Amino acid sequence: MLNVTVIGSGNVAQHLIRAFTKADGVNVSQAFARKPGNILHLLPEEKIVSDFSLLQYADIYIIAVTDNAITEVSAQLPFKNRLVVHTSGSIPMDELYPHNRRGVFYPLQTFSKKKEVDFSAIPVCLESESAEDYKLLITLANSISAKIFNINSNQRKALHVAAVFASNFTNHLYTLASDICNEHNLPFDILKPLITETSAKVQHLPPAEAQTGPAVRHDSKTIEAHLQLLKEDNQKEIYQILTQSIQAHAEKL
Amino acid sequence: MLNVTVIGSGNVAQHLIRAFTKADGVNVSQAFARKPGNILHLLPEEKIVSDFSLLQYADIYIIAVTDNAITEVSAQLPFKNRLVVHTSGSIPMDELYPHNRRGVFYPLQTFSKKKEVDFSAIPVCLESESAEDYKLLITLANSISAKIFNINSNQRKALHVAAVFASNFTNHLYTLASDICNEHNLPFDILKPLITETSAKVQHLPPAEAQTGPAVRHDSKTIEAHLQLLKEDNQKEIYQILTQSIQAHAEKL
Repeated sequence: MLNVTVIGSGNVAQHLIRAFTKADGVNVSQAFARKPGNILHLLPEEKIVSDFSLLQYADIYIIAVTDNAITEVSAQLPFKNRLVVHTSGSIPMDELYPHNRRGVFYPLQTFSKKKEVDFSAIPVCLESESAEDYKLLITLANSISAKIFNINSNQRKALHVAAVFASNFTNHLYTLASDICNEHNLPFDILKPLITETSAKVQHLPPAEAQTGPAVRHDSKTIEAHLQLLKEDNQKEIYQILTQSIQAHAEKL
Repeated sequence: MLNVTVIGSGNVAQHLIRAFTKADGVNVSQAFARKPGNILHLLPEEKIVSDFSLLQYADIYIIAVTDNAITEVSAQLPFKNRLVVHTSGSIPMDELYPHNRRGVFYPLQTFSKKKEVDFSAIPVCLESESAEDYKLLITLANSISAKIFNINSNQRKALHVAAVFASNFTNHLYTLASDICNEHNLPFDILKPLITETSAKVQHLPPAEAQTGPAVRHDSKTIEAHLQLLKEDNQKEIYQILTQSIQAHAEKL
C-alpha cells in the first residue's frame, strides 16, 4: 500500500484526492489544507491538517498548489529526505526545496471544479531525481492512469506551452464562436457536433492534414466576406492572423 | 420515396450520396459528375451522368460543388420550377439561378475524405423560398439527421464564420501545438486526451466559463516564460493576441 499525502485543496488537489481514494493500492493518509472546508466532502476530518508539523510519514507528498507557492510550501515541510513532488506543468523540478527527494507528477488535463474527469485517460508526466523514486511514481501513476510519460523539466515546459495552444486557446476560440452566434441569434448548440468532430479527427490524423476551410483553400472571396461580417476589431485581428498562419503553414508542407 | 439527385462529386457530395443511400425513404436517383470515376464506388455507373441534359426528374436537386461554381451550375440546369438547393455555408440562397425553386441544405460539419462521419449527429441548416419546399427539405434532412435548424441566409453567413473559429482555427492551434511538441521531441499523443476533454467540456458548459490557463489567471510569470520558449515569431504573435483576447473577454463578464 502506497501512502500518499496531498498538499493543497484547490482544483487539482481535489481531483487527485478523489482519484487516489478510488484507486487500488493507494491510501490518501493525509491532506494539508489551509481551508479544510474545501475538502471535507472528500476526506474524513481527522485526515485533514492545516499545520505542517502535523504531517505524518508518507511514501509520497504531492504539492498541488498554485505555481507561485510551490517553492515556499516545499521549503516549509518539516522533514527531510522524503519524496516530494509537485503537479505543475511549468515549474522545473529543482524549484522544489532540496532538503527532500524531488520529483514531478504532472497530470496533463484541464480540470474544472464543475465537471468530473476520467483519470484513466489522462497522461501523467513523471520526473524524479533517482531511478528508485521514479519507480514509486510509476506505481502511483499506474494506480489512476494507463498513460505514463517520462518527461524532463525542459520538455515539460514546452509541453505546457503546447497545451495552452491545444486547450486554453482553442477554448477561447469556442468563446469567440459562441459570441458570434449570440450576435446573430444562433444557438451555440449548432456548433457542438462540429467541435466534437474537429477534436476527434486529430486523434487519428495529423492536424496539418486535417486542416479545412477558406484559409487553406485560399478562398479569398469567402475570407473577405467573413472579415466584413465580423464587428469587433479583436475578432477581425484573430481571424486575419490565424488565416495567415494557416496559409504560411500549408506552404511549408 | 423522395427522389434526390446530387450534383457534384467532391467531399460533401460523396458524404451525402453515402448517407442518402443508407437512409430510409430516400432514393439517390442520379448523380452528376464531371469525373464519374470519383463516385463509381458509391453509385452504379448508369446513375452517374456528366451531361446536364441527361438529368431526369427528381424531387430535390442538391448542388454540392465548390462555392464559386454554385451560381453557374444552377444556371445550367435545363429545367424549370424544380427544387434546387445548395450545400454551402457562405453562399446566400438567392445566388442560385431563379428559374428553379430555391433552397439551402447545409450540413454543418467538417468533412474529410479519409474519415467517415456519423450523419445522425450533424446539424442540417435548412432554408427555402416556400413553406411547401421547406417540408420537403425537412423530410430529406430527417432521413439522415435528428438535428434540423431553420437558418436564413444572413444567419448562415454568420454561422459559417463562427464555424471557422470553432473548427478551422482550433485545428490550426492543434497544428501549432503539434509543431511545438515536435520541436522538443514530445509525442503529440500526450495532448490528445486534453484536446478531447477541452471539446467535451463546452458541450455542457458555456466556453467562457470553461476557460482555464495562465491568461485568464493573469499569471504573467508563466506567460513571460512561455513567450521566451516560443521560437517562431508567428507562434509568439498568436500567443500574445489570444492571451490579450482571453483577458479582455474575462473583464467583460
